[in-house]
Amino acid sequence: MSKSLDIAVIGATGTIGETIVQLLEEREFPVTNLHLLAGSASAGQSVPFRGKNLRVRELADFDFSKVQLAFIAAGEAVAASYVAKARAAGCSVIELSGALPLDEAPRLVPEANGELLETLQPPFLLTSPAPAATALALVLAPLRSVLALQRITLTAALAVSSQGREGIAELAKQTTELLNMRPLEPKVFDKQIAFNLLAQVGAVDDSGHAHLERRIAQDLKQVLGVAELKVAVSCVQVPVFFGDSLSVSLQAAKPVDVAQAAHLLDKQPGIERVEEGDYPTVVSDAVGQDEVYVGRLRLGLDDPSELNLWIASDNVRKGSALNAVQIGELLIKHYL
Amino acid sequence: MSKSLDIAVIGATGTIGETIVQLLEEREFPVTNLHLLAGSASAGQSVPFRGKNLRVRELADFDFSKVQLAFIAAGEAVAASYVAKARAAGCSVIELSGALPLDEAPRLVPEANGELLETLQPPFLLTSPAPAATALALVLAPLRSVLALQRITLTAALAVSSQGREGIAELAKQTTELLNMRPLEPKVFDKQIAFNLLAQVGAVDDSGHAHLERRIAQDLKQVLGVAELKVAVSCVQVPVFFGDSLSVSLQAAKPVDVAQAAHLLDKQPGIERVEEGDYPTVVSDAVGQDEVYVGRLRLGLDDPSELNLWIASDNVRKGSALNAVQIGELLIKHYL
Repeated sequence: MSKSLDIAVIGATGTIGETIVQLLEEREFPVTNLHLLAGSASAGQSVPFRGKNLRVRELADFDFSKVQLAFIAAGEAVAASYVAKARAAGCSVIELSGALPLDEAPRLVPEANGELLETLQPPFLLTSPAPAATALALVLAPLRSVLALQRITLTAALAVSSQGREGIAELAKQTTELLNMRPLEPKVFDKQIAFNLLAQVGAVDDSGHAHLERRIAQDLKQVLGVAELKVAVSCVQVPVFFGDSLSVSLQAAKPVDVAQAAHLLDKQPGIERVEEGDYPTVVSDAVGQDEVYVGRLRLGLDDPSELNLWIASDNVRKGSALNAVQIGELLIKHYL
Repeated sequence: MSKSLDIAVIGATGTIGETIVQLLEEREFPVTNLHLLAGSASAGQSVPFRGKNLRVRELADFDFSKVQLAFIAAGEAVAASYVAKARAAGCSVIELSGALPLDEAPRLVPEANGELLETLQPPFLLTSPAPAATALALVLAPLRSVLALQRITLTAALAVSSQGREGIAELAKQTTELLNMRPLEPKVFDKQIAFNLLAQVGAVDDSGHAHLERRIAQDLKQVLGVAELKVAVSCVQVPVFFGDSLSVSLQAAKPVDVAQAAHLLDKQPGIERVEEGDYPTVVSDAVGQDEVYVGRLRLGLDDPSELNLWIASDNVRKGSALNAVQIGELLIKHYL
């Protein structure tokens, strides 16, 4: 790649924004000038990049005509406010909150539906899917042609880092307080998260589904390109600091060949399959790694057309920052 | 009840055996003489019952003709060795390990298939199902007639107390060591359990299924009396001390009426349904309670014949000791 871009990272002081900056450096992304932006509360902080400390500036004042590509990792409200402004200035946007609808801001996992870019025009507006959807789409991408997927049933056990630094701090604080027999005051989560599982992540709608559950299902269907797929999603907040664990049951249109599925996963870049008898965990395998780990591949107990598996993935890396940077790499290689 | 029995509790010093003794007292089970038994390592300890400390005696020396009913909560090997001896002495047995086959030692959840006892003859041999199967069977019992269940997909998040006192101690120790930055040495569990999720509970067979996963599926099918049901089970060990959390997706033969399902659950003794918008957890609701808590009832996102729900249950009480004692109550009321 001889091209090089001026790039903005919005939400640069958050866990995901900071990891995007790290990955731009680690992966030698062709950046000419890097502009780090955040809300007024975080402006003035600095973030290291290529041996320098770059100052984080206030987003509200930023002139998007200075950059050709912006990563927005600052939540739904910021995305909704700034996407139009950025594109009006000719800047392509990779967004991570899912604030914009599927048709306007398509969900992209390069390994699963990278070819979607061929149908779009710059300035691009693309969304990195919900972290659990990205990890699962990566695993299902090589399997979908042989499986003829009918239904996905997913229980997604989410680390507290899905709620950013405050979620991490709350689990640490509650754990210490409980071990010291002190009373708890939940703040970030609505109930005690230490040594407990919370079955509801965010508010639910009138049908009882959490916003994130709907988001995972719709993102997954768009990325896999299987509109008629039935998806059941249950998100659970678990007392784990980093990394999402996914318990997945798939129903295929015909009996599944587990050895073939394993072989297809082994060939797929970005996936590390753990052999039978062992299994991956977020702590021992996934956290800090680019790869999504998969294991416990097995047929149904009563149904040869059912395939069960387990995924451990770093929600901040492939789930968020890495996938966004990979979308950027695809854009710069072929389209920008 | 004017009848009263001589009773043995085998495994009386374990978490489940001790809770059985507590429940016999709390529920005023008509006990004449209570014999507490354990292996040689635990014999000599004492366990409180009705204001006295009862001495635990060695199982190997016990004469089963002294009792009419025995609870065996001492694992598969003990159950396999002593069930025949007890019944040869005319003693009915309620067993909790699942060591014996379904046809020989039927699984029983009184609220779901209590009528099974009518077909049996004393001395009885009955099994209290795997804890997750008991909790789920209790919830599904009132629903099965209206749902015409086709398939159950279950992710069962199991507390470390499912591995007894050693599991509890290991989670506490690892948590403290991690918070103090000291290195870990997993013993009871094969990997770090603190702040982590383990996707495999016990060894797996050649098909990749854990013994416990097969047990939950078979127990559930027998208790629900639906042999053609398809059941997918994934057991996950989670960093929670007490209480099982079950993420459940059901497929019915026809569209589900959620309001009707909620109403049927509300009428069922032993179940506490948590209203929409809120949800139960093991810490805030289930632990130490006889009731099984259910919440997050919702249709499928893409399938009106799908019903999703969440269960929080005390694995030691209704999951194990309480269900066993309730089987005993049913036996003494009608059959002994």
